Amino acid sequence: MEIKTPTLLVDKEKAKRNIEKMAEKAKKSNASLRPHFKTHFSAEIGNWFKDFGVNTCAVSSVSMAQYFAENGWNDISIAFPYNPLEAEEISDLSSKVNLNILIESEESLKHASQHLKNKVGYFIKIDVGTHRTGIDPRNETLIKSLADKSSDQIQFKGFLAHAGHTYGCRDLESIKWIFDGSVKTLTELKSKFGGVISYGDTPTCSLIDDFSFCDEMRPGNFVFYDWMQHQIGSCSIKEIAVCLACPVVSIHKDRNEIVVYGGGVHLSKDMVQEKDIMGKDLKCYGKMVALKKEGWSSEVLGNVVRLSQEHGIIKLSNEEVARVKVGDVIGILPVHSCLTADLQGYYLSTSGDKIEKMTKN
Amino acid sequence: MEIKTPTLLVDKEKAKRNIEKMAEKAKKSNASLRPHFKTHFSAEIGNWFKDFGVNTCAVSSVSMAQYFAENGWNDISIAFPYNPLEAEEISDLSSKVNLNILIESEESLKHASQHLKNKVGYFIKIDVGTHRTGIDPRNETLIKSLADKSSDQIQFKGFLAHAGHTYGCRDLESIKWIFDGSVKTLTELKSKFGGVISYGDTPTCSLIDDFSFCDEMRPGNFVFYDWMQHQIGSCSIKEIAVCLACPVVSIHKDRNEIVVYGGGVHLSKDMVQEKDIMGKDLKCYGKMVALKKEGWSSEVLGNVVRLSQEHGIIKLSNEEVARVKVGDVIGILPVHSCLTADLQGYYLSTSGDKIEKMTKN
Repeated sequence: MEIKTPTLLVDKEKAKRNIEKMAEKAKKSNASLRPHFKTHFSAEIGNWFKDFGVNTCAVSSVSMAQYFAENGWNDISIAFPYNPLEAEEISDLSSKVNLNILIESEESLKHASQHLKNKVGYFIKIDVGTHRTGIDPRNETLIKSLADKSSDQIQFKGFLAHAGHTYGCRDLESIKWIFDGSVKTLTELKSKFGGVISYGDTPTCSLIDDFSFCDEMRPGNFVFYDWMQHQIGSCSIKEIAVCLACPVVSIHKDRNEIVVYGGGVHLSKDMVQEKDIMGKDLKCYGKMVALKKEGWSSEVLGNVVRLSQEHGIIKLSNEEVARVKVGDVIGILPVHSCLTADLQGYYLSTSGDKIEKMTKN
Repeated sequence: MEIKTPTLLVDKEKAKRNIEKMAEKAKKSNASLRPHFKTHFSAEIGNWFKDFGVNTCAVSSVSMAQYFAENGWNDISIAFPYNPLEAEEISDLSSKVNLNILIESEESLKHASQHLKNKVGYFIKIDVGTHRTGIDPRNETLIKSLADKSSDQIQFKGFLAHAGHTYGCRDLESIKWIFDGSVKTLTELKSKFGGVISYGDTPTCSLIDDFSFCDEMRPGNFVFYDWMQHQIGSCSIKEIAVCLACPVVSIHKDRNEIVVYGGGVHLSKDMVQEKDIMGKDLKCYGKMVALKKEGWSSEVLGNVVRLSQEHGIIKLSNEEVARVKVGDVIGILPVHSCLTADLQGYYLSTSGDKIEKMTKN
């Protein structure tokens, strides 16, 4: 397929290797793998997981659960706090598939037990230090009360945690430290109140080897990885399985910059802070690589320093800026593949096939 | 219509007043108004402009030009550097409507003149200081050469500039300073090489009164405005015409935070830096307001301090956090309405009607 506009390329072989590696780690740890599908949004990519024995998934919205249920997934956890306003949609869905929801307060659980019409499992969300959502694990009164509320409608499943604060880590030691704390916390809760442990975030699941403390691993981003994960240390550049192909529309040799068709509406405005060779702060919205006949090279040629709505501005070396021409198509390794993927209407495999995904309605 | 998931509300009255004000300013300046439609992406909202005599528009991509051409617009400028890879699509479109493209190099113009099959107008993009795209106005050799290349296929129309660096301004004085420089630069170019002047960016077009120096005003964001424009000083809070309605899913009174269903995939990760009451740096991804029966209140109740994919974390006062309940729907004034609008499948008017928009295919 000819590329004329910004198009997200997916390297199926890399993605499948990423899945295989994680599935093996789960197997060795005697844990199941319930991958988070909020990274790829795609029924076809979901199917790639099935080759490695995966038959459960997590999603971040009811509409995403509906999409994957329609595409053959019948054991789905909505890993987002229960939204009482969607009780009807959750009820409908749970008449068709095994569904788990996430609870972190008495009022939400009460609403769920009163309004959900079919059997739904619930996990208690534990805050292991990210301080985004979840219950402080020291609040055992609340945890006990919530764990005791199983009924015909709602069934206590266990404890779910997401160590999102590992995204701030840039060395293995810090990730281990967070992990050890989570293991202690969740193991204690499980021994006191029963249920299973569902744990996941891509940095931890990539960098720690033994997950035998938990029943279920729940990473998402690892199927694609991205520049942020590379910066954290979760993956090598060669493991990044997506790349945004962007036409070059303008060259500014005087300031070592090129402009590509590929902006905030294609990459998202997520960015990571880096240092330039002079030690100065540098914003990175993606890394430029060269495209090959099938796929892309893993050598970084430039840094996306700014994004506007449709423009990407890339800083290059003298040699590189002399090589690029208007009309070329270059690749950008995204900073955050989940948000980049969300912005696409479809993906293109490196062998030229269109990969469908869910879209907004 | 009942709101159950993040939904972008559009206040038609506010948007129409914003359009009216800009149309009147253009009229007084004896300039035409060619609004940039990359903010709203919507045929229906496009029609609101027609009530104020607007019949030309600017867009930021060929696909957006196709969408508005299909919806009755027959004079469109693609205000993005000419992408040679889309020559065929541009040719097709220019057989149906009056189309202008943007040129900033000899190679792009040569490609256009050789590959475009129907008459297309071209503007020379001038860099008035943003240093994103465009030609340094001192490079008169290049400008003269480009302005002289009219042919049967391509016709020189004039000079186009976007003072995007006004987005860094926080006082009128700086915006005036940028404006005065642009006026001088573009007036000189016009007097030397002919053509018309197309000028636009929302801060300048909102804050400066007299645009008689230019032939065409080309702002986009002003139809909706947003928190960034309010921070710049381009609009009052009451003029912001969009608000993301978000269900509350979690309350954390201990840290004065609530969590809403509404994250980076709904608002975009664009943000502005602010100071908290202690003078400390604060990130703002949006401002919380209360929803009313029709529309929203203009009193800011909280700050969106973090966003993940589907979660928004909002800091509130003690009083506010005590008032909010799980299951409530609150409003968020977006930081950057163009990117927030891009992320929606549709909008909802404050009177409850669905407003269709272009989506990604």
